[in-house]
Amino acid sequence: MIRPLARFATSALLSTVLCSASNPALAAGFDDVDPFIGTGGEGHTFPGAVAPFGMIQLSPDTDTTCEIRDCYDHAAGYRYDDPTIQGFSHTHFSGSGHSDLGDVLVMPVAGNEVALEPGDATKPGSGYRSRFDHIHEEAEPGYYSVRLTDARVLAEMTAGTRVGVHRYTFPNEEAAHLVLDLRSSLYNYPGKILWSSLRLHPDGTVTGARQTRGWAPDRHLYFAMRFSAPVKSHAFVNTEEDVAYRGFQGPGRDSDAVAQRQGRALVGRLDFGRLDAPLEVRVAVSTVDEAGAIRNLESEPGTFDAVRADTRGKWETALSAVEIEASDDMRTNLYTALYHSMIAPSVSGDADGQYRGPDNAVHRADGFTFRSTFSLWDTFRAQHPLLTLLQPDTVNRDIIRSLLASQEQSPFGILPIWQFHGQETWTMIGYHAVPVIADAYLKGVRGFDEDAALRAMVQSASYAPYGGLGDYMKLGYVPIDEEPEAASKTVEYAYDDWTIARMAEKMGRTRVADRFYDRSRNWRNSFDDKTGFVRARDSKGNFREPFDPTAINYGYDYTEGNAWQYSWFVPHDQDALFQAMGGDEAAVEKLDRMFEYDMTGIDYSHAEDIAGLIGQYIHGNEPSHHVAYLYNHAGAPWKTQERLAEIVDSQYAPTPEGLSGNDDLGQMSAWLFFTGLGFYPVTPGSLQYVIGRPFVERAVLNLPNGNRFTIRTEGLGAEKPYIGSVTLNGEPLERTYLRHGEIVQGGELVFTMQAEPNREWGTSTEARPYSMSE
Amino acid sequence: MIRPLARFATSALLSTVLCSASNPALAAGFDDVDPFIGTGGEGHTFPGAVAPFGMIQLSPDTDTTCEIRDCYDHAAGYRYDDPTIQGFSHTHFSGSGHSDLGDVLVMPVAGNEVALEPGDATKPGSGYRSRFDHIHEEAEPGYYSVRLTDARVLAEMTAGTRVGVHRYTFPNEEAAHLVLDLRSSLYNYPGKILWSSLRLHPDGTVTGARQTRGWAPDRHLYFAMRFSAPVKSHAFVNTEEDVAYRGFQGPGRDSDAVAQRQGRALVGRLDFGRLDAPLEVRVAVSTVDEAGAIRNLESEPGTFDAVRADTRGKWETALSAVEIEASDDMRTNLYTALYHSMIAPSVSGDADGQYRGPDNAVHRADGFTFRSTFSLWDTFRAQHPLLTLLQPDTVNRDIIRSLLASQEQSPFGILPIWQFHGQETWTMIGYHAVPVIADAYLKGVRGFDEDAALRAMVQSASYAPYGGLGDYMKLGYVPIDEEPEAASKTVEYAYDDWTIARMAEKMGRTRVADRFYDRSRNWRNSFDDKTGFVRARDSKGNFREPFDPTAINYGYDYTEGNAWQYSWFVPHDQDALFQAMGGDEAAVEKLDRMFEYDMTGIDYSHAEDIAGLIGQYIHGNEPSHHVAYLYNHAGAPWKTQERLAEIVDSQYAPTPEGLSGNDDLGQMSAWLFFTGLGFYPVTPGSLQYVIGRPFVERAVLNLPNGNRFTIRTEGLGAEKPYIGSVTLNGEPLERTYLRHGEIVQGGELVFTMQAEPNREWGTSTEARPYSMSE
Repeated sequence: MIRPLARFATSALLSTVLCSASNPALAAGFDDVDPFIGTGGEGHTFPGAVAPFGMIQLSPDTDTTCEIRDCYDHAAGYRYDDPTIQGFSHTHFSGSGHSDLGDVLVMPVAGNEVALEPGDATKPGSGYRSRFDHIHEEAEPGYYSVRLTDARVLAEMTAGTRVGVHRYTFPNEEAAHLVLDLRSSLYNYPGKILWSSLRLHPDGTVTGARQTRGWAPDRHLYFAMRFSAPVKSHAFVNTEEDVAYRGFQGPGRDSDAVAQRQGRALVGRLDFGRLDAPLEVRVAVSTVDEAGAIRNLESEPGTFDAVRADTRGKWETALSAVEIEASDDMRTNLYTALYHSMIAPSVSGDADGQYRGPDNAVHRADGFTFRSTFSLWDTFRAQHPLLTLLQPDTVNRDIIRSLLASQEQSPFGILPIWQFHGQETWTMIGYHAVPVIADAYLKGVRGFDEDAALRAMVQSASYAPYGGLGDYMKLGYVPIDEEPEAASKTVEYAYDDWTIARMAEKMGRTRVADRFYDRSRNWRNSFDDKTGFVRARDSKGNFREPFDPTAINYGYDYTEGNAWQYSWFVPHDQDALFQAMGGDEAAVEKLDRMFEYDMTGIDYSHAEDIAGLIGQYIHGNEPSHHVAYLYNHAGAPWKTQERLAEIVDSQYAPTPEGLSGNDDLGQMSAWLFFTGLGFYPVTPGSLQYVIGRPFVERAVLNLPNGNRFTIRTEGLGAEKPYIGSVTLNGEPLERTYLRHGEIVQGGELVFTMQAEPNREWGTSTEARPYSMSE
Repeated sequence: MIRPLARFATSALLSTVLCSASNPALAAGFDDVDPFIGTGGEGHTFPGAVAPFGMIQLSPDTDTTCEIRDCYDHAAGYRYDDPTIQGFSHTHFSGSGHSDLGDVLVMPVAGNEVALEPGDATKPGSGYRSRFDHIHEEAEPGYYSVRLTDARVLAEMTAGTRVGVHRYTFPNEEAAHLVLDLRSSLYNYPGKILWSSLRLHPDGTVTGARQTRGWAPDRHLYFAMRFSAPVKSHAFVNTEEDVAYRGFQGPGRDSDAVAQRQGRALVGRLDFGRLDAPLEVRVAVSTVDEAGAIRNLESEPGTFDAVRADTRGKWETALSAVEIEASDDMRTNLYTALYHSMIAPSVSGDADGQYRGPDNAVHRADGFTFRSTFSLWDTFRAQHPLLTLLQPDTVNRDIIRSLLASQEQSPFGILPIWQFHGQETWTMIGYHAVPVIADAYLKGVRGFDEDAALRAMVQSASYAPYGGLGDYMKLGYVPIDEEPEAASKTVEYAYDDWTIARMAEKMGRTRVADRFYDRSRNWRNSFDDKTGFVRARDSKGNFREPFDPTAINYGYDYTEGNAWQYSWFVPHDQDALFQAMGGDEAAVEKLDRMFEYDMTGIDYSHAEDIAGLIGQYIHGNEPSHHVAYLYNHAGAPWKTQERLAEIVDSQYAPTPEGLSGNDDLGQMSAWLFFTGLGFYPVTPGSLQYVIGRPFVERAVLNLPNGNRFTIRTEGLGAEKPYIGSVTLNGEPLERTYLRHGEIVQGGELVFTMQAEPNREWGTSTEARPYSMSE
């Protein structure tokens, strides 16, 4: 392992001081993580504290007062280039495009005057927000700290699985207060807050609830907080205006020091007086009820330092799944990518197993932990395959059981599309829970009801009212005159169908397999031989005119993309696609044209999520993610190798702007993690990883079965971008893919790099990755 | 038992046809009930179907489109003089002043066109509402039917404890539809509906939820419906406007036939096609969740006729607590009063014991049924004492356990004030759960945690932020400059305190008893010797000026009343009050002045709930309810007898306008029931019933211990309004009160009436009812 001495020394010192129990061997990957990566630009990650897949994401929000359209920049609450922090809230998405959350915002205030409004970021002192600078800011997995300039408070955050802990060091001789703002929320459209409540219990516990009409239409969030010092006085204020009917007022109606306040615009002030020690605030949330939040709080006892040390241990263990030798930057990129790949799907169920399901009712998970935050259109590609590789029988099995429970409880009877806190948002397209389950099943993950799973998958693929599926089942494609984004839907459905067929075949369910193998050929109905593009057709069968393969518009023929990106999406049958395009040569030529497209005069700035452009290849969004690997399918692997070097170089960096697009709950990161090691799951369900080229000197995957799979690169360097040869366990490997089993059984994969393209290796027909029609 | 043959025959025929299992002996009281009494004027009762203390009150709403102020007339949804019915909803208060509920409105529509708006009552056909007339309308306990003229549908309703059943007979050859309007609600202020949802399950069950900000600030109501015929098609429509953010749309977004719809303005249409048989609709509600509603639905299976017969049986049993011989009108009045006394407190918990408590969280009742709808300021006076007499160990024990559970779960740690569906509304004054519990305990009701009960009572009486209690504990009275309605609060607190002292004394808790006996004398601090009235004082001790004993204003010195009504409220120490007033003679003179007050030029029409005036005696509201009995305490019982005849004659009638004021969940009715039998619980907690005079020839109380207590009147008639003599079990009774134990052990009370006042009977000091300071 190569690491500069100075850096190691610093990290070791930090570890010794703060977490003396930490294991230096395990700490390696941990210290390489930089949670600030992606917090600038369009990465939409958050720098705050989170445990692996934790329910709590305790992180600073620099601005939640944005208006509708501007909210996009603050999807994760924090923007690296903002000058102030508004407060610290407990729930965040890691890299989502659309957003929500930012629940239960807490801000420390010192002194005698406590504003209950956040104030203007450009006017210091105009509210409870405070300036900060990056010199006095630190982050590592599970820990975040910042010195708040105006508040004169050192704010530190850590998080266990279901508990967040704040530690505030107030200036000496100054009264300590917390502002608790339930009005603050991410993507805070007017009317979003349907209802909320704040309650101070006789034992000093503060609980509350908030119900929001945000990305999820009716989300319930409950919380419980306890403090290391007694609440000496408090105010609970409802700033709501224009209430037609307030009802009769309860005890203390003229006072703000009420035991409970309800309404749609609540803000609280908690006063602690002068403190001799830092104030620690333990907070838990629940989707079930306040009692659940209290039980969650009690399920993970301990001080700030204890919770921090525990979570550090969890991250060290999680990150020790891989040992990496690479350049500093690449190591930071890859460990941060692994970190970002292990935030979602987040735990959403309570410590006692109760959770709120898609029917907005409370259920109990029997034998698993309910997880949510399913950004499936993104994550089915590489993030779930990564979890299936690294955590198959723990997190991954929970995910499958959570998906199946959600289907059972769905008012529509289908698997999640884009779900968080158990609630469906209907965002993006496809039924991509299907490949997640099928890929895991085919790779040997068990411990769930397989028949129920297949039934849920078939049902999700057959629910006529969803996304034009009724027409798709009749016509073999989604007609654009009936359903927007029809071209994208048709090809994605066809792939999802193929994964159902694969799983059904493995289960011996031949009739289901045959039916869905048939459906998996439907992509062909949307492919226009004349133009060579996947296109939208109307219900009469005509391709829609006029046709501009570069046009990107919401609700148009494609989903966040155009014909250039979407015409490559037949991951289960690239061979047939290439034949349709005119053969391998034509395909290679078309791929080249995509990457080298002259973008003069083309502007996609109106479209969120379209970022990271290399010609018409758009790495910042998912439809392009497998495309660079497709040269392999056309017998030109050296071109894949060439493109990957360009993509990795231009799209990732160990800086806040280091993600070229939304991390999308770990998909951008999982892409980099696989690619960094030299292979990528182009076709989940195929049991193959397509070989790209490695970006590490050496990496060892410590697999959960105890086996180790080593990747070694001879001749790594910018001047040698091409694979010369590959060996697997000492034997030459001529094919351009690895089998899942080959990794799982352990072994050594050695790449020898060279300066010039190797136009022989991996080019034979036998060398090519899976295609169904072969 | 006197009953006209013709009437009996009709009733018997009805019974035979519809409910052949019914027992004719038991049916007597049942057939005398007229649910239309109080549905006109200001009675605010509803004519629809309800089981004894049932969770479902399925009743027609004639108009729910009222604006804020006009809502008062439609507090129970139905007004006898309205020309149209808008629909049938499942929850109603019986006689409340303020209001809410009217949940899940259902309306049948025949034919091909189905309006989704109720339309204008003055324009037939402008919406789904329909005209009706009283000729084609019937009601009996647990059953209601009406022929809807415009809809051409016979609508029948019945209700079990947790299930309502509709039966609609549509015209032949016409398609049958139901409109299901979740926008409709009683007291429907703008913004009341916070959220709602409608869902059609694959098995044909329709469920839904509604969360309202009404009289209770955040009430959750779930429901489940099943139909005797399949739903052939449906529409779920959200008519909400001005939604800033609708989120992503789910399956079937362009269609109304979605499996689920959410929003703030939902209306549904259910289509059944042409039916060969009447459509039966079974509906249950729950405050817990939809699954709870489904379980409630399944807990009481059976057809319309089966549920109706079962509920008829329950009412017959409940009403058989008394056998009455009296004039037709009086029998109707008294049995209807008994019926109206047994509607609330309503069952609020689910069949499985779960319920939503005052913390808006779900709890489970262990060993009792959770009941709510506590209109305690009204009902502590006579309705709870009536239940303590007739149902001490069943309903009554549940009530006490529900009150104690509510205290435990209250965010404020106090007993309910005015609670429904488990939610506190903070309406009216006092802590009158306290006398309810104390009176029952002192009368021997057990089966609850007595120590917890006393603790809950003391805590409720000591919670400083509630209703000026902090100042009351410091000053001995509630100061008007700090707290509105201070005069009323002071005297009511003092009485409540006395009941705590009584219970504590009985439990041997001397220190608590002493403390609260002391507090019970606080009424004296609000009594002005100079004017002879109970008055409001400021915190410096001065009575507030100017003083007008006839003024009635909201939030003024008194609660829905003035000095005339409130100056009599020392039920635990009338003797001391009369002494303060200048002695018995002065008291009698002042009582006479009250009843005979010249009301020329005095207008109380601005004040809701002020109705039924006899001078300054206002029978339509509760502060006056014990006043006519107080002549007894001053040694002039013949004046009580005289006044009672006047009150009964003028304030009650067997007609829709037959209640002079809001029935207040049975208090107006319980007053009549007791008074009709000849005695009244002037001072709950004293174990006494003060004798008035009887209005029945004969009545037998069939007590739950198997004993029978008979009241017999010799010489009943308008021409003999005065008691000549009384015997109890054959012995002359000289005192003007009965002891609780004397009734409970069974026996016979015989009144002999005479034309002239008997100025001897009951006038001695020993004959007078309880006064603490004697």
